[in-house]
Amino acid sequence: MPKIDHCADNLSCDAIPWCRDHHGRFYSFEEFLELTQKFHGYPAPGVIIGAKMVDIAMNRMPSGVLFDAVSETAKCLPDAVQLLTPCTCGNGWLRVVPIGRYALTLYAKNNGRGTRVYVNPAQLEPYPETRYWFYGIKPKRKDKTDLLIQEIRQAQDRLYGVQDVHVLPQFLIKNPSDRRTICPECGEAYPAGHGPVCRGCRSETGYFLQGGN
Amino acid sequence: MPKIDHCADNLSCDAIPWCRDHHGRFYSFEEFLELTQKFHGYPAPGVIIGAKMVDIAMNRMPSGVLFDAVSETAKCLPDAVQLLTPCTCGNGWLRVVPIGRYALTLYAKNNGRGTRVYVNPAQLEPYPETRYWFYGIKPKRKDKTDLLIQEIRQAQDRLYGVQDVHVLPQFLIKNPSDRRTICPECGEAYPAGHGPVCRGCRSETGYFLQGGN
Repeated sequence: MPKIDHCADNLSCDAIPWCRDHHGRFYSFEEFLELTQKFHGYPAPGVIIGAKMVDIAMNRMPSGVLFDAVSETAKCLPDAVQLLTPCTCGNGWLRVVPIGRYALTLYAKNNGRGTRVYVNPAQLEPYPETRYWFYGIKPKRKDKTDLLIQEIRQAQDRLYGVQDVHVLPQFLIKNPSDRRTICPECGEAYPAGHGPVCRGCRSETGYFLQGGN
Repeated sequence: MPKIDHCADNLSCDAIPWCRDHHGRFYSFEEFLELTQKFHGYPAPGVIIGAKMVDIAMNRMPSGVLFDAVSETAKCLPDAVQLLTPCTCGNGWLRVVPIGRYALTLYAKNNGRGTRVYVNPAQLEPYPETRYWFYGIKPKRKDKTDLLIQEIRQAQDRLYGVQDVHVLPQFLIKNPSDRRTICPECGEAYPAGHGPVCRGCRSETGYFLQGGN
């Protein structure tokens, strides 16, 4: 992918791919908007931004390295990771650590070395709509969404900070698949390591009432 | 979708769709294996099972109802939900409550009424490979994977329990988008409601060392 650090207008933006996936397929900005609409339900600014962040991180990974991902927010970024990398919420290669920072990390599975990309507040100054959206200063303004999307597009990779990181060894350890046992209260199976009763019956869910119709 | 409660062999299974997505598109078993391979990285039994669970739940939702989803495990099921429904980890319509039970719930956004589908241990008896896999009794046996997958296929909808549930009102409330503020320690933005310092700087992540190359 050509290294571009600015994009004066939409016309020149059109010629530049917005991101690529782990198979090496490039997506134009419009193509990625469409992909986001399809998977995420609407062309969310956070997913568009996330795609550029994944792209930056993936471009810094050595070729052929197997990597895992961490998102520091549950909002939007996990979907950008899922759309462009092999890491998903269900296969264990993407972890969401919901501390609310707009940042993601891709790191080598074998040694934890990787790249963290984050939205850098200091770099938002020239982008008023992006700043409003990012800080949640104004309520969502539907009439300004197009303006926001175009601002993100024109900013290209100028909104982000990049860090080399080294994921700590204890974070690299995957929980082996636990043996399951039957919960004496609900009669369903659960990981035996959770204790004598499943966590659902210890009221850690408490989200439904059975037969509640 | 035709109501089938048994499937004697693969030949008769071939004629029956395995699941459908929220657009109403049907997937044969083979087609869904392929979709799983593409998104999840490999044809995981848990995603195949999850698809049937989503299918059962979705068939019980009144037509046109907007629904959210909960998975009671982080393993595999979230990907089945993401592949077949509009609910994703990043758009907030799928929540993972990692209590380790193999169950998922789809419920109406407006009133919390929905369906919970779970793997019912009492119904696994006739399916030895599925039982081994589900309880984690034996280590993964690659040579038996095909047998397991075919067993799941032939069992059709006979592995699952179904409950009408009513999600509690407090679980229906979505956190409004928080205002963000700058963390005095890392200089990044975080939800102001988290306190005077971001959760990353309160060592709730602790997963990387900066400049760790």
